Amino acid sequence: MSALTTVLLNLFVIYAAAKLAGALFSRLGQPGVIGELLAGILIGPHALGLIGVPTVGILDLFQGNREAAEHALELVLESFAELGVVVLLFTVGLETRATDILRVGMRAAAVGVLGIAVPFVLGFGFMALTGHPGLESAFVATALVATSVGITARVLQELGVLRTREARIILGAAVIDDILGLLILAVVAGAGSGEADTRAIVLIALQALAFVGFIAWAGTHATRRFSVRLDDVNEIVPLNLSLLLMLGLAALASIIGLAGIIGAFLAGMVLAESRERFNLEHQSRPIYEFLVPVFFVFTGTKVDPSALTDGPIVAIAAAITLIAIISKLAGAGVGMLGAGRRAMLIVGVGMVPRGEVGLIVAGIGLSQGIIPADIFSVVVIMSIATTLIVPPVLSAIYQRSPETGAAAVITHDISDELELDAPPAV
Amino acid sequence: MSALTTVLLNLFVIYAAAKLAGALFSRLGQPGVIGELLAGILIGPHALGLIGVPTVGILDLFQGNREAAEHALELVLESFAELGVVVLLFTVGLETRATDILRVGMRAAAVGVLGIAVPFVLGFGFMALTGHPGLESAFVATALVATSVGITARVLQELGVLRTREARIILGAAVIDDILGLLILAVVAGAGSGEADTRAIVLIALQALAFVGFIAWAGTHATRRFSVRLDDVNEIVPLNLSLLLMLGLAALASIIGLAGIIGAFLAGMVLAESRERFNLEHQSRPIYEFLVPVFFVFTGTKVDPSALTDGPIVAIAAAITLIAIISKLAGAGVGMLGAGRRAMLIVGVGMVPRGEVGLIVAGIGLSQGIIPADIFSVVVIMSIATTLIVPPVLSAIYQRSPETGAAAVITHDISDELELDAPPAV
Repeated sequence: MSALTTVLLNLFVIYAAAKLAGALFSRLGQPGVIGELLAGILIGPHALGLIGVPTVGILDLFQGNREAAEHALELVLESFAELGVVVLLFTVGLETRATDILRVGMRAAAVGVLGIAVPFVLGFGFMALTGHPGLESAFVATALVATSVGITARVLQELGVLRTREARIILGAAVIDDILGLLILAVVAGAGSGEADTRAIVLIALQALAFVGFIAWAGTHATRRFSVRLDDVNEIVPLNLSLLLMLGLAALASIIGLAGIIGAFLAGMVLAESRERFNLEHQSRPIYEFLVPVFFVFTGTKVDPSALTDGPIVAIAAAITLIAIISKLAGAGVGMLGAGRRAMLIVGVGMVPRGEVGLIVAGIGLSQGIIPADIFSVVVIMSIATTLIVPPVLSAIYQRSPETGAAAVITHDISDELELDAPPAV
Repeated sequence: MSALTTVLLNLFVIYAAAKLAGALFSRLGQPGVIGELLAGILIGPHALGLIGVPTVGILDLFQGNREAAEHALELVLESFAELGVVVLLFTVGLETRATDILRVGMRAAAVGVLGIAVPFVLGFGFMALTGHPGLESAFVATALVATSVGITARVLQELGVLRTREARIILGAAVIDDILGLLILAVVAGAGSGEADTRAIVLIALQALAFVGFIAWAGTHATRRFSVRLDDVNEIVPLNLSLLLMLGLAALASIIGLAGIIGAFLAGMVLAESRERFNLEHQSRPIYEFLVPVFFVFTGTKVDPSALTDGPIVAIAAAITLIAIISKLAGAGVGMLGAGRRAMLIVGVGMVPRGEVGLIVAGIGLSQGIIPADIFSVVVIMSIATTLIVPPVLSAIYQRSPETGAAAVITHDISDELELDAPPAV
């Protein structure tokens, strides 16, 4: 089987598994994303091995070097997954005006800052108290810091509550969270390589803030002006310009060290400001259907059940995962003080997933020789566990008190309520 | 820059270049696909090097092994390109009912068979007469055989003539051509490895014929029945089932040795039969806009101008390219005898591109040690030249005699004429 045939077959299996599991879970009244994650666990290289296993064609491409072939196939699938989550956050952005985020700005800032500070302090404390070196403890604490908002955004979208106050606080906090996480990583990684350069760190901070601020401000204004001129053209032109902006800002955010999905979210948000919106939500739907499930299935394939057979590692992993969950709940909860127990719980749970961000931090620590391999596994388990736990818990919270949720929707015009909010089965 | 950042940036550059060049060429009255191909040549690793060049992140993934890193990045981009051309042929299939192809079946068969036979005989004759060994000559002749229908299909789509008799003959002939090309490859490669197994070859033949025949027949009937039941559901369900069929048949065709795009074309054709069509053409348009240009830009990046500096190779390449063009024109032309000079020319030119099929054949010959490296380069130049030459020539033919083209449209119901036929600028 040639390399391209392998890729086609992998994509087919991913897509088929996603749609099958998604349809099943929708029918059970659960978010389809849970089905997609479980399907990924099932078909991944650690379980059935239906995807991610290099064939002769890929092995030939790398002169029989199995490790290189595996990395290459994983990079291919990861690239499709990344494009999927970029599209996801872009569509989430389309439903979020900058003014909506600014309206919850203070809350989002409080949640973002406290949701970073508490996990860092608790994580560092636990590691240091259990006898790990300072720098190793700092790296693990940093891996506990940054929220990966993709999973939460998808669940909120499937539940049809993206336009509630809580959802907007989560999205705003995730942007702030990502910038702060980047800074902490710069500090810790700098200390790790012995080149802690204050000027470089300040530069990173300014760059990230300038990026987010400039895009949100200038983009919003430019879209308002520009959109008037585009009113007469075929709707394909605005779609192409929007996809260009999505890819461009995702790449740019990624280059300056932020998550690519933050750029994609900002691209969507900037375009949401344009009143007409050129039918963008409707038009991006087929791309969403095609690419977004790849991300969640791929995330599932990362789960390696065999990592759970090593007693001592599992014990530390359980402790770190618990700290990761409790510290985010506490940090975000304090940030939401006075907003009511339900809102505190939703925002807290929504900020729990660490996803790929923690893995990147731990990966740097591993490559610098600061984190040993077993602690890296601990971070991997924590990252996956916090990701898997959120969809069922978050949807359970909404299902127990749906009426309050509906009342909290602060949408301004009904015509904006679109099908993206509640995808159907298959 | 991390590996995923590199991929995002590469995709952005490809997309930006495609849309810019496509818009420019559309404004000049030329098919956008020419702009995309030229943009690819410009930004590719052999020219400006804006894409396809591994960064630190990808090099790290392969422990600094530059060759592996380059192969991996190329595989990533090639995978997106492949998905793009799969989507392209799927949308072409959506505009083509099986009954339309059957109506031109005899013509398509004649064009397919003669369009294979003449290039093989002429190619083999030239190579053998210029002193190359018999097996090497047979491999080069085989590389001259199979048409790659992607480029032609895109040009016909952009010109809005996909539903003319000529376009349907080209599509039908391309399917037959691909099956025959697969058989010849099986024979020649079998002879090359000294394991010419008649039973295996007969099996391949039966498998390919059974695949095409069964899909076209059963698929068409199943769609007619099934589509009635789907009438009531949300239009997203049929879209997802269609994309699933597209990926599944592309993977299956690829596994049994046919081109993946033949499977995608059949998937589209099967769905075209369903009267309602669930708005599939409209819905697949955004996916088309997003992925199809990647294929054409990526094809452009394969051009290495430095290959044209070696005198003797260029001379053989020029001769082989000329033979490739003339033999297809002659073979397809004879198959079209009696259909008029214009139809002969359109079908002949439309069958000229060899694209990736010739490269696969030559690659097998190279890896078996039958084709020397310089003759492999010759096949690469032939493959690219026959691909680049068709868009301008084909559109020139249609622009010179557009009125006859319009008259030849054999569409049955006007409401079917859709926007896909004539994509706008950007």
